[in-house]
Amino acid sequence: MQRKTFRDMQCPIARGLERVGEWWSILILREAFYGATRFDTFQKNLDIAPNMLTRRLNGLVEEGLLERRQYMERPPRFEYVLTQCGRDFLPVLLAMLEWGNKYFASEGVSVQLVDKDTGASVNPVLVDAKNGNPVNLARYVVAPGPAASEGVRRRLADAAEYMSAQSES
Amino acid sequence: MQRKTFRDMQCPIARGLERVGEWWSILILREAFYGATRFDTFQKNLDIAPNMLTRRLNGLVEEGLLERRQYMERPPRFEYVLTQCGRDFLPVLLAMLEWGNKYFASEGVSVQLVDKDTGASVNPVLVDAKNGNPVNLARYVVAPGPAASEGVRRRLADAAEYMSAQSES
Repeated sequence: MQRKTFRDMQCPIARGLERVGEWWSILILREAFYGATRFDTFQKNLDIAPNMLTRRLNGLVEEGLLERRQYMERPPRFEYVLTQCGRDFLPVLLAMLEWGNKYFASEGVSVQLVDKDTGASVNPVLVDAKNGNPVNLARYVVAPGPAASEGVRRRLADAAEYMSAQSES
Repeated sequence: MQRKTFRDMQCPIARGLERVGEWWSILILREAFYGATRFDTFQKNLDIAPNMLTRRLNGLVEEGLLERRQYMERPPRFEYVLTQCGRDFLPVLLAMLEWGNKYFASEGVSVQLVDKDTGASVNPVLVDAKNGNPVNLARYVVAPGPAASEGVRRRLADAAEYMSAQSES
């Protein structure tokens, strides 16, 4: 199926989705964080069709999230390891985990983030690194950066106005 | 195209993706945060085919992220507004924005999060709400929750071991 690319949109969310937005890709990254490196492990854990898994792994390698490494010469065998770019996807996964637990864990929480030492469950929140303030739309807003096109500037001006009004209502 | 559902997986990330993981859905949510409510606005801003937009909007309404509201009687006209569940997706979007800016803003930053009062650009980080510690794999790990099946418990035991070893290497 042909689908429109998000690559040329001047938006970091769209550009990120271009790399991970295909069905299965984010679960493959989750597996990589959980320790899967070999094709068979991904396949068994995800119950995904081999041709689909091949396509998605190749895509994640092309986009720089996974590195393909040979771990055996005869027969040639390869493993897939997170790159720094792939490892830096962790906050997106954890934000998704938090949201999924809040709304879709109908039978109760099955997977949670815990403190390694105390075992206490953790509520991850997004804060401003400078001052620790929770990031919400009462205090923060999207704005054009130095590279923004005229079109992006116009759209974000409208968006900022809307977001401000929402957070006050 | 038929695709496998993630709905029955006992994983909050998979359950979340079941709701937003289709191509376009997350950009539609971005538009909703930016203030789009009407079909035509989504269509114009995203340059998305109308039949696809209809499918995605209906999906997001069914899954409880958007609410469909009638705003005009004659002719009948509807708008789409974020529900609480949809609004709580914001941290995922912002984590994606941060990651996209870090790796894929080849021409420089076009869209950024800023402090409304000072205009200073914000570096959002995920922290433990209890103590403000940055959430990383040196200190935190995924673990089974009370509702975890035996299979999930086994897999997370392996994952925890792997993640710990990685963070020490």
